[in-house]
Amino acid sequence: MPARLATSLETAAPPRAPEFSDAVLRLRTLLADDLDAVNGQILARMESPVQLIPDLAGHLVNAGGKRIRPMLTLATARTLDYDGDDHVKLAAAVELIHGATLLHDDVVDGSALRRGARTANVIWGNKESVLVGDYVFSRAFELMVAAGDLRVLQVLSRASGVIAEGEVLQLTTQKNVATKFDTYIDVVEAKTAALFAGAAHAGAIIAGADGDAEEALRDYGRYFGVAYQLIDDALDYAGFDGDLGKNVGDDFREGKMTLPVVYAVARARAEEKPFWRRVIAEGRQTEADFEEAVSLMKRDDAIVDTVVCARQYTERALNALGKAPDGRYADALRDLVKTSLSRIA
Amino acid sequence: MPARLATSLETAAPPRAPEFSDAVLRLRTLLADDLDAVNGQILARMESPVQLIPDLAGHLVNAGGKRIRPMLTLATARTLDYDGDDHVKLAAAVELIHGATLLHDDVVDGSALRRGARTANVIWGNKESVLVGDYVFSRAFELMVAAGDLRVLQVLSRASGVIAEGEVLQLTTQKNVATKFDTYIDVVEAKTAALFAGAAHAGAIIAGADGDAEEALRDYGRYFGVAYQLIDDALDYAGFDGDLGKNVGDDFREGKMTLPVVYAVARARAEEKPFWRRVIAEGRQTEADFEEAVSLMKRDDAIVDTVVCARQYTERALNALGKAPDGRYADALRDLVKTSLSRIA
Repeated sequence: MPARLATSLETAAPPRAPEFSDAVLRLRTLLADDLDAVNGQILARMESPVQLIPDLAGHLVNAGGKRIRPMLTLATARTLDYDGDDHVKLAAAVELIHGATLLHDDVVDGSALRRGARTANVIWGNKESVLVGDYVFSRAFELMVAAGDLRVLQVLSRASGVIAEGEVLQLTTQKNVATKFDTYIDVVEAKTAALFAGAAHAGAIIAGADGDAEEALRDYGRYFGVAYQLIDDALDYAGFDGDLGKNVGDDFREGKMTLPVVYAVARARAEEKPFWRRVIAEGRQTEADFEEAVSLMKRDDAIVDTVVCARQYTERALNALGKAPDGRYADALRDLVKTSLSRIA
Repeated sequence: MPARLATSLETAAPPRAPEFSDAVLRLRTLLADDLDAVNGQILARMESPVQLIPDLAGHLVNAGGKRIRPMLTLATARTLDYDGDDHVKLAAAVELIHGATLLHDDVVDGSALRRGARTANVIWGNKESVLVGDYVFSRAFELMVAAGDLRVLQVLSRASGVIAEGEVLQLTTQKNVATKFDTYIDVVEAKTAALFAGAAHAGAIIAGADGDAEEALRDYGRYFGVAYQLIDDALDYAGFDGDLGKNVGDDFREGKMTLPVVYAVARARAEEKPFWRRVIAEGRQTEADFEEAVSLMKRDDAIVDTVVCARQYTERALNALGKAPDGRYADALRDLVKTSLSRIA
């Protein structure tokens, strides 16, 4: 039998490297019932007699994000054999915190496109996005409170503060070409990794993890979050609009000091410094500048080294996960991280 | 001795009617130590290595609000003989929720002046105010969680959601001259009274109030909140810049359908309807229009009847307070409501 199986594999199409989207699908299949319950919670919490709220929030929620963050909560709880249903409330709360952040981010960045759809600020307006964002955020807290675990509330309320702090830090580094590697990693740890970590941590706590497993799953989320954001940053220079679901070059046009730019500026020749000052610090850009920026980044390995840095964080995530209990949920979480670099490969 | 005292009083200046500012001062004196502790909590929570956060939040916090809401939490706890210190955390959280709301409101309204000082959005910018508002809001939740009472968390997270819902409702009524009395009261109940109610309720819960006292103090806060907002609304047409700490006529220029406008539109003669449509619905205003609006309001008792409506709510607040335990804190809370109409008298 083994021999025959080998033959059949050899004559089949050459095996495709496993991709991130496959890993997401695998996790989504494992968690299908839980995810349905999460969607139910989210829709119920967005009900309001003020019609603008379900309209705008529904647009956000239905825009089809990958639901990575709530899946972290669900999967970490399940990998510890949790059989209650508070993980569903927490996962929904995590997704709503993320959604509220997106609403405010898009206002702050003036973004027009997200996940391939027009943003709420473009359809309804900035004022509407700010206030509905506040509503979504409050509803997230209500959901967490409904789960009734004070330690989880500490972790997730702290994460929310750190996210906002990271957004403010990012705003102060914007257009600042002197931004260093460490500062940018601080931004990423706060604005992205804190919620990945909080999501995974919340699932572990609600499932009654022991101290080691709790720490391992939290660290898994944190390192995965950093890697995920760095790949996003690289995709803004090396991706395609279709893959990103937003416009390639958005970060560039906003003068964001993401890691590819930090590397490119640090490695630029003396005669290229004025280019970076003009396009980033002064925000004066022509049509051709984005291509020029990508070309300089490629010459100086600024994008490649961003991916190398992301890979280091995926390795840390895998190490952390190795200290948590095994099983099919842990396997799926491992695949998610292992394949995450394939988003740009 | 009593005779002599009477004589000395008789020869003094005629007694001044007790004013709201006196009642605030009385409560502030009673609660001086608690308020110092609240300020300490607020400053500690606004610390951050991201300098913009203490700068902007400090501007907001030091701008010298009257601290009415946190005083409700402190005084309701004290009137029930509470002797712990969690009421300080909750009072600080209530003031931070209020502060976050102000930051976002000023962005949404494009306000330039608040409490007699330039607003944060004018000094630092809209993006900064949105993101620091999110930070302040998250820190408020952390403080509530630190107090560790799940029922209080339910009450205050629910109040936050209701406030945001009220802000969205107000936005959808803006420039809508067809807005009715009931809808506007819904706006006020949500955007203002919910936090007054939550503040008073939180103090009662943390002090272990029995069901009747808890309900009485919550209702006191709620009705006082409605009255307080209605007086604010009347002051926007009948006050002076100095009293308001903002520009008189701000609501008018933004096309807000507050109660004076709701009454004025309902009572306008047929030939005056186009005036209200132009200045409110179409937002086309000249210098002279505000004076014309005030003149029509005075003729039709639109401002007076707003105050009459506020008085009905102060009476409800006093009735509710009558069902709570007596004492010097309750007396001070009673004075606060009794004198609140003096802000416009």
